[in-house]
Amino acid sequence: MSSNINIVLVDTSHPGNIGSTARAMKTMGLNKLTLVTPKDFPSDIANAQAVGCIDILDNATIVGSLEQSVCDSVIVIGLSARPRKSSIPTLSMDQCIDLLNKFPNDEISIVFGNEQSGLSNEELQTCDYLVSIPTDEAYTSLNLAAAVQVFAYEYHKNCSKHQISDNKSDIAKHSTKNTLIQTFISIMLILDIITEKNKKSLIQNVHVIFNKSNLTDNEANLLLGVLSSIKKALQK
Amino acid sequence: MSSNINIVLVDTSHPGNIGSTARAMKTMGLNKLTLVTPKDFPSDIANAQAVGCIDILDNATIVGSLEQSVCDSVIVIGLSARPRKSSIPTLSMDQCIDLLNKFPNDEISIVFGNEQSGLSNEELQTCDYLVSIPTDEAYTSLNLAAAVQVFAYEYHKNCSKHQISDNKSDIAKHSTKNTLIQTFISIMLILDIITEKNKKSLIQNVHVIFNKSNLTDNEANLLLGVLSSIKKALQK
Repeated sequence: MSSNINIVLVDTSHPGNIGSTARAMKTMGLNKLTLVTPKDFPSDIANAQAVGCIDILDNATIVGSLEQSVCDSVIVIGLSARPRKSSIPTLSMDQCIDLLNKFPNDEISIVFGNEQSGLSNEELQTCDYLVSIPTDEAYTSLNLAAAVQVFAYEYHKNCSKHQISDNKSDIAKHSTKNTLIQTFISIMLILDIITEKNKKSLIQNVHVIFNKSNLTDNEANLLLGVLSSIKKALQK
Repeated sequence: MSSNINIVLVDTSHPGNIGSTARAMKTMGLNKLTLVTPKDFPSDIANAQAVGCIDILDNATIVGSLEQSVCDSVIVIGLSARPRKSSIPTLSMDQCIDLLNKFPNDEISIVFGNEQSGLSNEELQTCDYLVSIPTDEAYTSLNLAAAVQVFAYEYHKNCSKHQISDNKSDIAKHSTKNTLIQTFISIMLILDIITEKNKKSLIQNVHVIFNKSNLTDNEANLLLGVLSSIKKALQK
């Protein structure tokens, strides 16, 4: 049975962690793995860790950017082991599970950052939500595959009972939302609303506003039409 | 802060799994590790996996039998990734967490079997309860450290908020209960109640009866006194 969850590993350094991730996924019924610019993959070291679940590595998609990895998802969730100062909305694991249960038939991406540095602020801007796995304050160094295991376990325990159907929701895909965001930013640039000083926080805010908007596909396309007209008019 | 949880690994083959277990524990605030006849420990391979948590490996207790590892615990829980036919009571993970929350100040052992074979039936008889981590039916091969991670995560999420105090419960320690069980079995042997044919199931039943009895220390000692008198009288 295939699941609607897309596990995304960004900039993974150690191929062993990719193999262990495959095993963590398969024990909990997850099978869609996407690797964003892995340092060393395919790899015998990854295969050695993926006992009985080479199929997940063989079917893994390798892409060149986080954006590509999540374009078909209706929700993109960044996972972190540390609490982070973030301007995107944060969810507890239980809130995350509730959200997942609302969209059993749409692709949802769960994004894990590099082993050393986690998800960068730029990568987080691609995400709609941030979920922190609670750890002991004195030692937060959760191994990458262990973090995937914790998420996969929660998913299997609380979300996998759905009868998957073709009833996809009408929520806008990430790629549509992203076009909307980029168009809006380009309009702000044309109008000199964005300056060197406010650039970072303003762009971040725009991402957050659109990412948490829960726009349907129709709504996103309507807005996109309006924004494109505005942009064209401004450029005359 | 020290926790009341004793993580017990039985017959571990691969030292890397011991190192990963230490890391899984420390991220969730657990620090007491007991190793029953590990194949290869101490080990550089274990140390390499235990980034930032060598202290857990340095302080690990190594013992020669499962019985020794749990003698001070009031509850002993075997963890398994596969559902098993077992004559000891089984708990769901949530029931396990409820039980743990009832004894925040007493040592509770969580026992994990060998990587290949899991806990043997004999090892399970030392346990009061069996908890199966739910996995996908098609692939149940949870890595040892990943299983520890799942338990530790649930513990940290749901049990670690207690203010640890010295208010230990009055429940009997495993070692006392075990003396009781062995004395009862020896009486059954003297009386020829135990035969070659019924030996296995009868001994198993006795273990289950006493293990799930929730006897207090006083009750266990009272029973032990009675049984010792019976045994002495029978041997005259």
